[in-house]
Amino acid sequence: MPHTIDKDTRLCMSLSGRPSNFGTRFHNHLYAALDLNYVYKAFTTHDLPGAITGIRALGIRGSAVSMPFKEAAIPLVDELDPSAAAIGSVNTIVNTDGHLKAYNTDYIAVQLLIERYGLHPGQSVALRGSGGMGRAVASAFRDAGFRHGTLIARNEPAGRALAHDTGYTWAPEPMQADVLVNITPIGMSGGPEAHDLAFPLPLVQAAQVVFDVVALPAETPLVQAARAAGRTVIRGDEVAVLQALEQFVLYTGIRPTPEQVQAAATHARTP
Amino acid sequence: MPHTIDKDTRLCMSLSGRPSNFGTRFHNHLYAALDLNYVYKAFTTHDLPGAITGIRALGIRGSAVSMPFKEAAIPLVDELDPSAAAIGSVNTIVNTDGHLKAYNTDYIAVQLLIERYGLHPGQSVALRGSGGMGRAVASAFRDAGFRHGTLIARNEPAGRALAHDTGYTWAPEPMQADVLVNITPIGMSGGPEAHDLAFPLPLVQAAQVVFDVVALPAETPLVQAARAAGRTVIRGDEVAVLQALEQFVLYTGIRPTPEQVQAAATHARTP
Repeated sequence: MPHTIDKDTRLCMSLSGRPSNFGTRFHNHLYAALDLNYVYKAFTTHDLPGAITGIRALGIRGSAVSMPFKEAAIPLVDELDPSAAAIGSVNTIVNTDGHLKAYNTDYIAVQLLIERYGLHPGQSVALRGSGGMGRAVASAFRDAGFRHGTLIARNEPAGRALAHDTGYTWAPEPMQADVLVNITPIGMSGGPEAHDLAFPLPLVQAAQVVFDVVALPAETPLVQAARAAGRTVIRGDEVAVLQALEQFVLYTGIRPTPEQVQAAATHARTP
Repeated sequence: MPHTIDKDTRLCMSLSGRPSNFGTRFHNHLYAALDLNYVYKAFTTHDLPGAITGIRALGIRGSAVSMPFKEAAIPLVDELDPSAAAIGSVNTIVNTDGHLKAYNTDYIAVQLLIERYGLHPGQSVALRGSGGMGRAVASAFRDAGFRHGTLIARNEPAGRALAHDTGYTWAPEPMQADVLVNITPIGMSGGPEAHDLAFPLPLVQAAQVVFDVVALPAETPLVQAARAAGRTVIRGDEVAVLQALEQFVLYTGIRPTPEQVQAAATHARTP
């Protein structure tokens, strides 16, 4: 039963080029489960500075920041948390009495998953992808101490730049490693490569861990191949839920139980 | 049952120095009753230009504008409806694809009540009050054709200014008329004059119609005295509901049935 909206209800929101229902359903479900006087709503904008001015002026408690606003938001906030400063990319803004502090909970979520699945810095890692999310994931591995890394990107300038920033080696094509990480849209439903493997099967079979950041579907071809080969699998939907959970904690100061998180995640995934 | 908030939900809001629950409860009740994908939330701000920039940038569909922002909002919008231009005061902003048009639904509501209760321009009217709401009410009577009016205000400069703008005569103390209208806080619960009559009893008894704009309580001492004297009574809560209804129609394009409005008004008044 949702809390009735009244004059004291606090608004949290998202800013993205193409709003989805995931955050809206995840956060509103948790507000109801915990009887918190908050409401969550997704927005898009053609005027990012104006939108952030509005967040400040209206006392909106927090906002997710998605593509294509993750870099452009940086000069518009008052303070960068190390999670955002480390990668030059923002996915969360927290407004405390008009002071805007920006975080990157994708980076935080990947670090939590590295810990949760017991990955260790002695493992070699092959990271495929050089976009904004690629930067968050590669930086999370680097900052967790992983020294032996290959940054795979067909786009050579972007790949070399991210390799340089993280200290990893650039390569144009997938290479063998203990931990394979896909941070490209390969395997994403509806995309042109929905049925493709981000890493060839022999590399999957030679790996120990396969981590696919694609969340839709959670069971990508890569995840299915890794599971069939008996490898440890980390899925993109875990990243999506964990990063949303960390936003929830930043906005409300409350950490829900794992069961509450699970229920909200299930609700959020239901169309 | 409220509509589930999703990525397509539209936000309407209010901006006021001291938000109340009335608009929030009224609009959200109607959204639920009509299964409209809208949500309503009250805000305050210390930065009115920033707040209105945010309305535009976030595509917020509309906003009520209350004290102390009704005049300051004028230069911040793109267009003034005659209802706002007539009185130099805004209580509603409608955002159509980034174009902000401002209205004054208090003015519209008073004109509707003049019509609904069959008042006619031949009647003389004594209007007590010279604030922003006084200006909306006096202008509504003037524009409905009422020529014989007295504008009563203890504050001589404000009273003379409004009398000049409306073509009515200023007077410092209540005077007899067919229609008595209180637009001061006299009779408002919690105020210093909560138990006072805005017009002396003999004037109430000599009048045909008594119109009290005070909404809390609806049964002010003036309303009670007028009812006891058998006079036609128009109450402030009717203004509050009608002006909110006109906002609802402007935002959604839908006019609820009288029964739906009544149910929303009853819900909105419940603490």
